[in-house]
Amino acid sequence: MSIEHSKPGWSQEEAEFAASIFLLAQQRESQRLVGVVKERVVHVNELEHLWQLHDFLSARRYDIEGKSELDLETALFVFADFVKSRLLGLDELNGLAPEKISKIAAMVSYLPDPFHGELCG
Amino acid sequence: MSIEHSKPGWSQEEAEFAASIFLLAQQRESQRLVGVVKERVVHVNELEHLWQLHDFLSARRYDIEGKSELDLETALFVFADFVKSRLLGLDELNGLAPEKISKIAAMVSYLPDPFHGELCG
Repeated sequence: MSIEHSKPGWSQEEAEFAASIFLLAQQRESQRLVGVVKERVVHVNELEHLWQLHDFLSARRYDIEGKSELDLETALFVFADFVKSRLLGLDELNGLAPEKISKIAAMVSYLPDPFHGELCG
Repeated sequence: MSIEHSKPGWSQEEAEFAASIFLLAQQRESQRLVGVVKERVVHVNELEHLWQLHDFLSARRYDIEGKSELDLETALFVFADFVKSRLLGLDELNGLAPEKISKIAAMVSYLPDPFHGELCG
C-alpha cells in the first residue's frame, strides 16, 4: 500500500494514521470474506452453486482490488464505507481531525446499509 | 443439452447413447469439482488464497461451459478427454460402434495425463 503524504489538508501524522486504519479495515474485510466463503461452500452441492460462488468472488474481487490503495482524495468516503460495513468503528477514527470525522459520520448516515438483507461479505 | 441426431456415421441409437454417457460424465465432473472446491476451501486463510480459488473456478468454468453441449463432430475427442480424466471408463463406451471405441482408445493414449501433478478438478 502506498499513500501520498503531502496532500493539502492532511498532516503527515494524520496521513499515517489514515494508512494504519485503512490497513486494519482491509485485514478485517479479508477475514470476513474468507469466513463468508467458507460458510457458503458448505451449501454448495452442484455446479450451479459453484458458478454462483464464482460470480460472488468476481464481484468481491472487483470491489476489493478497486480500493487496494489509500487515496487521500477519496479517503473520507472510503472510511465512511468501512464504517457502514462495520469494518471500522467511528471511535477508531480518532487520529483524524474532528471535522473529518464529522464528515465521515454524515456520509455514513446517507449510505445504504449493506447488512439490509444479508451479509455483504 | 441438445444433440444432432442425423449426423453421417451416427445412428439414432448411437447418438442417443452418446448423449447419455456425455450427461453421465458431466454429472461426475460436476461432483468432482464440487469436492475439489470444498477441499481447497479448507486451506483458504487469506485473501490471496481466495483469489487463487477464483482463478481456479474461472478456468474450470471456461472449460466446462465450453463443452456444455455434445457435438457429434468432436464427440470422440471429448469422450477421449473424459476417459483420460477418469470421468468415463472405456468399458462404459460399449453402446458406440467398435471402430469409434478404437479411435477413442487411441486418442486416450496420446492425451497428456491430467493427474500428473495434482487432481485437475
